[in-house]
Amino acid sequence: MSAAGSASGPPEPPEPSTHAEQPDRPEVTVRAGRIEDLEAIVGLLAHDGLGRGRDGGDLAPYAAAFARMVADRNQIQAVAELGGQVVGTMQFTIIHGLSRRGTTRAQIEGVRTLSTLRGRGIGEQLFAWAFETARAKGATLVQLTSDTSRGNAHRFYERLGFVASHTGFKKEL
Amino acid sequence: MSAAGSASGPPEPPEPSTHAEQPDRPEVTVRAGRIEDLEAIVGLLAHDGLGRGRDGGDLAPYAAAFARMVADRNQIQAVAELGGQVVGTMQFTIIHGLSRRGTTRAQIEGVRTLSTLRGRGIGEQLFAWAFETARAKGATLVQLTSDTSRGNAHRFYERLGFVASHTGFKKEL
Repeated sequence: MSAAGSASGPPEPPEPSTHAEQPDRPEVTVRAGRIEDLEAIVGLLAHDGLGRGRDGGDLAPYAAAFARMVADRNQIQAVAELGGQVVGTMQFTIIHGLSRRGTTRAQIEGVRTLSTLRGRGIGEQLFAWAFETARAKGATLVQLTSDTSRGNAHRFYERLGFVASHTGFKKEL
Repeated sequence: MSAAGSASGPPEPPEPSTHAEQPDRPEVTVRAGRIEDLEAIVGLLAHDGLGRGRDGGDLAPYAAAFARMVADRNQIQAVAELGGQVVGTMQFTIIHGLSRRGTTRAQIEGVRTLSTLRGRGIGEQLFAWAFETARAKGATLVQLTSDTSRGNAHRFYERLGFVASHTGFKKEL
């Protein structure tokens, strides 16, 4: 499995631009994930290159985290569904704040798509959903971070109109 | 006014390491900001180098955004208070998520300290509060982004134990 790139579980490089060359771009349904999707979502997280060592295994901690997300109206674990199968996922978070004159922002984490469907527009459709959902919730800025090793992911984001203006720092407690 | 560096209103370079050379490090009180603090907080945001063009002016949009933050139990607009004056601020957000086995993370945005108090440990005290609060809320990861032009801010974060592992992308909607 692969990824379109993000901070949380640093993803594998996403699909290069294939709009022109790739006629077979299946249309997916992007929706809020449900508890029945959890195993498939964790599978996508675990099969990412960087996520392999730190995701997977016992579902219990994921189920607990999923319950925390569901209880938070600012969080959506989105999934892309194709023929009844979860083929992609991303974490979508609305963050209200004061800076930039009270800008509401949307933050994306943990973007993953099924490796067998790479380069076929699943990531683009997840992001199209994210932009639309962000606007509907009053956000005027979308942000994410991506592991610095992910050159392909970075080109994917730039193609979507993102600007690589910041350095992302993390500290484990 | 200056800043300890973060994504939201990219801040001015924060204080260099001055623990040894600077005996005068006032002890501040870090607490959740209140509506009465709003004007001072906006003043800190507006007087930052990068925030100057995009923050300040009419308080109404800030008051509306502050109300949205207060309604969200995962958000704290922290302030550092010294002698009854707000001398620093940061936005603190708890983000639950699935990746990294259901890790809860704390995210910091818009760190600012009063320019006349730069290099005197206000930023360090804000972050000490953030780490403590993050742990108390079950977070095991703290993250932030900082404008790539902020070399001093980046050294400040590295001193605090942050690792610059990611590239931060933003897109305006």
